Amino acid sequence: MTGARLFFKCENLQKTGSFKFRGATNAVFSLSDDEAKRGVVTQSSGNHAGAIALAARRRGIPAWIVMPSTAPRAKRQAVESYGGRVTECEHTVASRDAACNALQEKTGAILIHPYNNAQVIAGQGTAALEFLEDVPDLDVIVTPVSGGGLLSGTSIAAKSLRPQIRVVGAEPKNADDAYRSLASGKLEPAAKAETIADGLRATLCPLTFSILRERVDEIALVTEEEILSAMRLLWERLKLIVEPSGAVSAAIAIHKKFPVDGKRIGIILSGGNLDLDQIPFVRAPK
Amino acid sequence: MTGARLFFKCENLQKTGSFKFRGATNAVFSLSDDEAKRGVVTQSSGNHAGAIALAARRRGIPAWIVMPSTAPRAKRQAVESYGGRVTECEHTVASRDAACNALQEKTGAILIHPYNNAQVIAGQGTAALEFLEDVPDLDVIVTPVSGGGLLSGTSIAAKSLRPQIRVVGAEPKNADDAYRSLASGKLEPAAKAETIADGLRATLCPLTFSILRERVDEIALVTEEEILSAMRLLWERLKLIVEPSGAVSAAIAIHKKFPVDGKRIGIILSGGNLDLDQIPFVRAPK
Repeated sequence: MTGARLFFKCENLQKTGSFKFRGATNAVFSLSDDEAKRGVVTQSSGNHAGAIALAARRRGIPAWIVMPSTAPRAKRQAVESYGGRVTECEHTVASRDAACNALQEKTGAILIHPYNNAQVIAGQGTAALEFLEDVPDLDVIVTPVSGGGLLSGTSIAAKSLRPQIRVVGAEPKNADDAYRSLASGKLEPAAKAETIADGLRATLCPLTFSILRERVDEIALVTEEEILSAMRLLWERLKLIVEPSGAVSAAIAIHKKFPVDGKRIGIILSGGNLDLDQIPFVRAPK
Repeated sequence: MTGARLFFKCENLQKTGSFKFRGATNAVFSLSDDEAKRGVVTQSSGNHAGAIALAARRRGIPAWIVMPSTAPRAKRQAVESYGGRVTECEHTVASRDAACNALQEKTGAILIHPYNNAQVIAGQGTAALEFLEDVPDLDVIVTPVSGGGLLSGTSIAAKSLRPQIRVVGAEPKNADDAYRSLASGKLEPAAKAETIADGLRATLCPLTFSILRERVDEIALVTEEEILSAMRLLWERLKLIVEPSGAVSAAIAIHKKFPVDGKRIGIILSGGNLDLDQIPFVRAPK
């Protein structure tokens, strides 16, 4: 269909249903015993939340999770099923930060930010590490970009193992702050971020921005319709449930938003957690 | 959730999206060159059709496929994409048989019946063979039952490798002819077969009935709602697209329609081909 050979790293099949368990596990298990016993706190629209909750449970420490009230039901349920203690906040950065700060002050728990954290970024990079072990001769590796943790870890791991590899980030047109930031060379403010890809509404931080500037070759954008049609195609042909955010990386290849012809392209399908009721399907591309 | 340990054989990830490719391949490649060059013909609501079309293409011979006009769009498209030549018929056994006979007379092609065929049954049995190689100590193995080809092959392979294994068939309550036939000891006529499990509307034939009588321990029944809620659970938790017919075997375990507690249960998820537009989801069980 694309003229390329596509390989998929199925992080939708990862524990907790997304790559986030890699970074969360690395960060939670990197804490000293003294730090860990105070517990951890984080803010997340969903997948990092579930990942931190399970990583904390595995270490036997409490986890407080700040989630926006708009987070998908399935993601909130997952957090609770892993023993995470959920605090709801408004869907704004200010509201998230305030709730997080209040919890830290009250409990003394350590903040594990979803991407502004070197241990988290290192953990996320293990997906690319495994991917290149399985398929060493990839020409391109693609991940979605939101806060930039996965793309940062991927670019560090992939360019270290294979300097000639092209690292491409995939972003919804409706949440294109990484695209604009890399284009202008400075951190641009968030877009309105009204996208079906609920995991991709965060914005870069100075740490991830500096990594992406140095190591990412390109950010490509897709429309909402292209995200949904790619997701549907993955469901129908791969028989894999991939969430909208996870399908964005496939969407830029399927819809040829960067040069794909004849290439061996590694696509990280970042997660598979969603509310099935919320998916307004459009038709798959012919 | 069930008190059992569940293992899944993911035939939704099989070539052509269902186990049917096993039997079709074995049957098509068992033909002599003289037989094969006349081509093959079959009748099927979908998955056997696609499987025969691809097996025939791999052998380089033509395939004529009789499909009811009610077959899912996705299944018909698959047949055509594999080069199968589709003839539409009414959704009755008589109409299917008539169309099939007419094609045989006209072309001289060999009929490969979807289950009344020893090579097909032998091929289907290879799923259980692989399953028991992967998980040798299963207490129970479950497959859906329609015409009985998969369950026949499964029961022969499984009981031969592991005589103490319990072989259970799963059938929609709305298409319960296998259940009634094993209960009465004679081939019972078809039910109305109004079930979302479009692949399970066929009825046993004397060959499959005789195998099931000898080797199957139990047939268990599930309602339409139980099929859909099990399917939804598979989508949400396994992140795997399983079609309604394929979810019936999981449904009898999830809804505990036979003794499951403490057992190691092998479930064959038979296929993953469906029209996404046609799925009226009910809520997953808590």
